[in-house]
Amino acid sequence: MLINDMPRYEILDEFALSELERGWKRIVSELGIEFLHPEALEYFAQAGQKVEGELVKFDPDWILEQVAKAPAEFDLQARNPERSVHIGGKHMVFSAVYGCPFVREGNVRRDATYDDFQNLVKLAQSFPQLDSPGGTIVEPNDKPLDSRHLDMVYALLTLSDKPFMGSVTSGPNALDTIAMAQMVFGKESLEQTPAIISLINVNSPLRYDDRMLSALLEYAKAGQATIITPFLLMGAMSPVSVAATLAQQVGEALAGIALVQTIRPGCPVVFGSFLSNTDMQSGSPSFGTPESAVGLFCTGQIARHYNLPFRSGGALTSSQVVDAQAGYESMMSLWPTFLAGTNFIMHSAGWLESALVSCYEKFIVDVEQLRMLHAVFKPLEINEETLAFSAHQEVGQGGHFLGAVHTLERFRECFYRPLVSSTENFERWNRLGARDAATRAGEIWRKTLEEYEQPAIDPGLQEELKAYVDRRRIELGD
Amino acid sequence: MLINDMPRYEILDEFALSELERGWKRIVSELGIEFLHPEALEYFAQAGQKVEGELVKFDPDWILEQVAKAPAEFDLQARNPERSVHIGGKHMVFSAVYGCPFVREGNVRRDATYDDFQNLVKLAQSFPQLDSPGGTIVEPNDKPLDSRHLDMVYALLTLSDKPFMGSVTSGPNALDTIAMAQMVFGKESLEQTPAIISLINVNSPLRYDDRMLSALLEYAKAGQATIITPFLLMGAMSPVSVAATLAQQVGEALAGIALVQTIRPGCPVVFGSFLSNTDMQSGSPSFGTPESAVGLFCTGQIARHYNLPFRSGGALTSSQVVDAQAGYESMMSLWPTFLAGTNFIMHSAGWLESALVSCYEKFIVDVEQLRMLHAVFKPLEINEETLAFSAHQEVGQGGHFLGAVHTLERFRECFYRPLVSSTENFERWNRLGARDAATRAGEIWRKTLEEYEQPAIDPGLQEELKAYVDRRRIELGD
Repeated sequence: MLINDMPRYEILDEFALSELERGWKRIVSELGIEFLHPEALEYFAQAGQKVEGELVKFDPDWILEQVAKAPAEFDLQARNPERSVHIGGKHMVFSAVYGCPFVREGNVRRDATYDDFQNLVKLAQSFPQLDSPGGTIVEPNDKPLDSRHLDMVYALLTLSDKPFMGSVTSGPNALDTIAMAQMVFGKESLEQTPAIISLINVNSPLRYDDRMLSALLEYAKAGQATIITPFLLMGAMSPVSVAATLAQQVGEALAGIALVQTIRPGCPVVFGSFLSNTDMQSGSPSFGTPESAVGLFCTGQIARHYNLPFRSGGALTSSQVVDAQAGYESMMSLWPTFLAGTNFIMHSAGWLESALVSCYEKFIVDVEQLRMLHAVFKPLEINEETLAFSAHQEVGQGGHFLGAVHTLERFRECFYRPLVSSTENFERWNRLGARDAATRAGEIWRKTLEEYEQPAIDPGLQEELKAYVDRRRIELGD
Repeated sequence: MLINDMPRYEILDEFALSELERGWKRIVSELGIEFLHPEALEYFAQAGQKVEGELVKFDPDWILEQVAKAPAEFDLQARNPERSVHIGGKHMVFSAVYGCPFVREGNVRRDATYDDFQNLVKLAQSFPQLDSPGGTIVEPNDKPLDSRHLDMVYALLTLSDKPFMGSVTSGPNALDTIAMAQMVFGKESLEQTPAIISLINVNSPLRYDDRMLSALLEYAKAGQATIITPFLLMGAMSPVSVAATLAQQVGEALAGIALVQTIRPGCPVVFGSFLSNTDMQSGSPSFGTPESAVGLFCTGQIARHYNLPFRSGGALTSSQVVDAQAGYESMMSLWPTFLAGTNFIMHSAGWLESALVSCYEKFIVDVEQLRMLHAVFKPLEINEETLAFSAHQEVGQGGHFLGAVHTLERFRECFYRPLVSSTENFERWNRLGARDAATRAGEIWRKTLEEYEQPAIDPGLQEELKAYVDRRRIELGD
């Protein structure tokens, strides 16, 4: 968990913020948002909002009253209390890629399996730059669809001791997640401090679907955190304008956050953003784009305006392989992630091919990028000690600092030490096999998995979790 | 030329700035700086500075008085007046990689030739993101050492009509550059507004060498711009501390700038920064590092503090090939380049392998990154028109924006259009040959060279330049 004490990069002035506010208020009040779940509609009707069938037309001031009940910051428990995190304020919490059906390992791209799921959880557990493995780090396609959420939660709770993300595929699956978390954290502790954070996507434009809402309802009732995220690829789910898309994003997100606060006032909730654009030439989604960088700056500023923690960013790319494009597009989205002080970051490691693929090598390359940016976003100390005048006195004119006392005392820790990047001279690099960054990353993830050790867990607890999974799997008919 | 109207990212507070000022003043006054050129020493002695052999101990207030004479902004002429640039303020001027002995073309790394030099000048001429080809874009190793500066200046002045960088290998070579520029721009016009900008490196720590000084003297006398650049790889040419290195950088740069202003008050000059670190494990220089990003933010703030235009940044990397590392390291240095509002950027395109290699494919990949960042650093308009409420009205809940009137009216221009990046789906990408970004970049530079057309030049002028080169080559014994 990074505490980002560096300045925020803000590009919206007061006029722009007020125009955006005018924009989202008009959308939610005049056009309204569909909620495809009777219980959600009932909450809104009870609260006096105008419900027409599945369409809700909102009083924007009511939305803001509800949103004001959400905490600006909150704690999220981990199985290992030392790995618990704080969400909001200056804190930045990083989790791995989420939701990919395929996996890439070197030159092989294939359906992901539960083995891959476990491997990627282990990798997320192994690198301190990742505060959480996330949730559906890949789809375990070899597990039955109805019960694979149990296998995923089981792996997340036993192979890692970091905070995790819950299942959102249905209300009952959310309840399974909560039941398993209760075994680990205790019912009362879970009630007091959330230990599950879950991704609730809006079915944009202006629609929340039945499955996401049923999961949202269960998590909100249980006081567990959700990330309410409009899913916006400009040109497809929103207009081809960053301004219009931001207005839509705010309206959609705040309406969902208002629902959470209506269900359980004070329930932790995160303003989510997933905002990029369609490539208008290919019609494909496009990631690591200039527009998404600009959207990210604005999203941070807007979330702070409403006093909410926010989620955005990640190491995004449309590239099919771990090439230069994968490198520069990931940085194109990671830099604004840090500059905006994003509180919760999904897709921090492993994302490839517009999130169709979780890639082992990309995972390592992204960890390197996170490590570098962690080093950048650390305040610089300028004082008599760091000015190191004695080093200048010692070396003088035309000398070399490599052998200076000041250097010898500090050479191990003075600079960032790369994980995968190479500075080898060409001759040595050639002699060692002329391996590019992706090849070196392949060696690193394999070694990391070899060296992985399961974090301590009470054998009774692990048994209890397993028994729950086995029982529920039978109940679900798998 | 980008006019960067976005905010500057500043991380130094008043205390830090004053500590740095204390730091550099102590270095220049107590330790002093060597100037290995009698004429430079004479200027300093005349101005009342303490000269001890080749060592000059400065009165820091005298330095600041001289520095105050330098213009905060200035124009730089191009052969084509439409391509003239402005250096300083919000302006950002981009030039290509500089000084590499080798070239890489696909999988072949070899000694660079004059053909490569000409090709790379043509590429720089072809992309609007590059405001200048720079100068020694590669070393033309197949040309005789004593006269190759003539060949380079000739190519820069005839194959491109953008501003160019002058030869700094000696005083006489600088005079050749000036003589050729006089033919193009006219003596009087050149006297009034510079048309040459040249890189003067400090032989850090705390030493200006004879060759650089003799070039500096000629350019300053002729009123041509120089970029006074301490060459600082922390751990080699400066202490292993960003703070100490910044203090050294300011002292070294301001002393050189003071010399320029003593020679010719008001002469255009740029505060230069080339600040990275040694990889303390390999002993090699390391580029695209977190430390250099932090140094860049600070350099921008310091240059503005002294009211000077500044040079820094570029698309730097230590990578040996155009791989993911080349992508993320270049972005690691390009993002701060833009965030700091760098006025003159060398090494914007083509840099590979710690500047040992000018790479054709990297050139294209870097142009893509520049294009993306140009798009990011453009103010976002938020107003009734961009809020596009009509698009939301048209599409409503759960619809799709691809066919909306608002989209159809704007789809060509609404988003960034990539040059080399691919968003192709996996099947199509595979069918088209599974080309990675470097492979696609290879196709683009070849096509660009095929389509290159020499910018218009008066045949008499070209003949005159050629005659000068031929005459001087004979005089130089080549």
